[in-house]
This record gives sequence, structure tokens and C-alpha cells, in this order.
Amino acid sequence: MPTEREQAVFEAAIKLGALYHQFVGTPVSQETAATIEEAIESAVRLQPYVTDVTVRLDRSVMLENPFGYSEVSGRMFDVTISTRVGEATCTAALRYENGYPMMSIID
Amino acid sequence: MPTEREQAVFEAAIKLGALYHQFVGTPVSQETAATIEEAIESAVRLQPYVTDVTVRLDRSVMLENPFGYSEVSGRMFDVTISTRVGEATCTAALRYENGYPMMSIID
Amino acid sequence: MPTEREQAVFEAAIKLGALYHQFVGTPVSQETAATIEEAIESAVRLQPYVTDVTVRLDRSVMLENPFGYSEVSGRMFDVTISTRVGEATCTAALRYENGYPMMSIID
Amino acid sequence: MPTEREQAVFEAAIKLGALYHQFVGTPVSQETAATIEEAIESAVRLQPYVTDVTVRLDRSVMLENPFGYSEVSGRMFDVTISTRVGEATCTAALRYENGYPMMSIID
Repeated sequence: MPTEREQAVFEAAIKLGALYHQFVGTPVSQETAATIEEAIESAVRLQPYVTDVTVRLDRSVMLENPFGYSEVSGRMFDVTISTRVGEATCTAALRYENGYPMMSIID
Repeated sequence: MPTEREQAVFEAAIKLGALYHQFVGTPVSQETAATIEEAIESAVRLQPYVTDVTVRLDRSVMLENPFGYSEVSGRMFDVTISTRVGEATCTAALRYENGYPMMSIID
Repeated sequence: MPTEREQAVFEAAIKLGALYHQFVGTPVSQETAATIEEAIESAVRLQPYVTDVTVRLDRSVMLENPFGYSEVSGRMFDVTISTRVGEATCTAALRYENGYPMMSIID
Repeated sequence: MPTEREQAVFEAAIKLGALYHQFVGTPVSQETAATIEEAIESAVRLQPYVTDVTVRLDRSVMLENPFGYSEVSGRMFDVTISTRVGEATCTAALRYENGYPMMSIID
């Protein structure tokens, strides 16, 4: 049987993988970024064992295509998710580091 | 060369196909449905030639899974999109009909 | 009522918008690109009114991330789709042009 | 610092969450299911720390819509993924149980 800590880690990672592949490609601009952030947070918060989530999309890399908008990409995400299973907790993050949307356990 | 009307039709259909496959699978509940609707509308509105869009997710088919939420599915969508290319316009819709998320030109 | 030509145009565009947003973000490499191309083609071919589809992902822009793979992006697509509704047909394409994954009616 | 075991668990879960939300909604039929399974496996295998993956889509729940095909849904997945980080390993699965696409650590 996995420990509660392992399960908390497992649940946090599911949510990071899920949100990345659900929302990558969504049309976004600096004006609509807050709406997309809120939608992603609302989607994560519904999922089991989540106690906290913050999603921030980096406006500075929202380069405009010829039609004046951008698309959600790995480069934009700054996400922190916390989970609890029984007595155990996990905080994990998704951040763009060294050319890669890195997901890692931070606590 | 396609006519302006054909281009307006083409552009409306792109957006319908895009939003369906971008957002299907997103965790949603009756409490968060408005947030997801707003995010989808914001994403469609950024795209070229769109003049109007309304997205409504049918709460009555948001059946709760064992963890108390649902996922956006073809069954939920009621979407109307209008486009303009030059002098021509098109209004198209996505609605669940006869067991299928039907996309059609309505004007 | 829309003409058959308008409907053929509409159906082709739905498929282009759909495949783009369904598959963007999929992990891919030069070694697996053919498998992903085949999967996309199989998915498009199932959809109504499609008579032909070819999907080519540009290997030359599959830059490797630090873990040695890439993700399907708008930059990679070269897609041609043909549809028929009644007597009318449409051929449409998705190609990366001027920094944008451009969808257009080509016949 | 997380243990190697926690990291192996974390990496397995990322892949499960990712593949679910990447591929849900993909048009599929009994005839094309093997192609989609192969594409999903190829995408998972590219990702870091994966040592093994098998993806099976349940043909018996591929109900045909009026146009004769189905879409990948949570109900169809039977996936097993193994990861290794240093000396530690994890095997995790995605299976439809009690009306939910359940992801769990199985070893």
C-alpha cells in the first residue's frame, strides 16, 4: 500500500499533468489572461484532494501573432498546487525552467 | 478564390471545431460553469473574424462523479458564433442533437 | 439554407480547428512523428463528409527539449483535408505561414 | 528534498494526468483504436523517467454516434505506466472504476 505522503504526491502530479495538456493551445492575450487563469484554477480546485491552487500565466511571453493574440504554452505557466491525503500533504509546482515546463515537488 | 461568404463560413467552423476539442474534458461543476463559459468565450473572441460568441454549458447534464464534479462534454455545449469577412457574415452553432454535438450553419 | 458548397467548406474547417486543438501539446519526436501523423489522420477520417486527409508534421522544427523530445505545435502542421457534401467539394489546408498556423480554403 | 520513490510516484502521475486530458475527445472507432493506443504510448514513452507503458482502449464502450464513430472518453482507458528515478520505481494505472477514470499507485 502506498503511504499517505505518496498519495498526496501522486494527486498533486496528476493535476499538473492534466492542466498542462488540457489548456495548452487556448487562445489568450494580456487582456484575457486573468479569465483563463481563473478557469484553470476553478478546474483544478474541483479535483480530489486539492487544498490550494494558484495559476499565473506570464504576460511577458504572450507574444502577439499576426492576428493580435497568443496561445497558452508551456513557457507561460507558473502554477502551485497543494494536496492533502489523510495527514500527509504535498505542494508541487509547474514552472518554465531551462527551456522546459518543469513540474516538481516543492514541499 | 473563395467568396467572402465562404470565408465567413470557414472561419466560423474553425472556431467551433477548435473550442470543442480544446475544452472537452475540463473539470466543471454547476458552481464553476460560468467561469468556464467566460473563458471559452474569451478564447473565441480573440480569434480572427469573430464578431460575436455566446457559450452556454447545460447545467442539467453536469452529473456528478464520485468526487462531486463533472467534465465538459459534447452533451453540454450550446454555442453560437458569428463571423464577418468583408461584407459577408455567418452565424453558426454547436448544439447537442440526436446524441451528437452537432455543428451547423444557422444564418 | 446554406448551399452544399458552403456546407462542404464548413465541414472542412471544423476538422482543421478540431485537430489543431486536439493534438497541440502531444509529446513527439522525429522517431514517433509518423505514429502521431497516422493517429491524426485516422481521427479526421472518421468524421462526417471527409473524403481525404493528409497530415505531415515538420520534423525540422521538432527541437528537442532537455529531455530529448518536442511537442506538437502550430509550427509543425502541414494538413490538407477534402470534404464532399452532395455534389459540392472543398479542399482546405493548415500550414504555418508568417508566424501563424494558417487555415485556408485552397479549392 | 523528496525521496526517489516520491519522485517516481510524481513522474508516473504526471503522465497519467497528461495523457487523459491530451487525448480525451479524439475521434476513435474499433477500427482505429489500435492506432490511437499506439500514438498515446509513443507520447508517454518520450517523457522523462518512463520505463514502460501500455494503453488499452475498451472497444466495448465505443458506442457509435449517428455518424458511426466514437470519441476517446474516461470510460475507455486501461493504462499502466512504470517509472524509475534513481533506484526507486513506481507503477501506476488509470482504469474506469465506479463511474470514474481512477488513477492509482499499484506498486
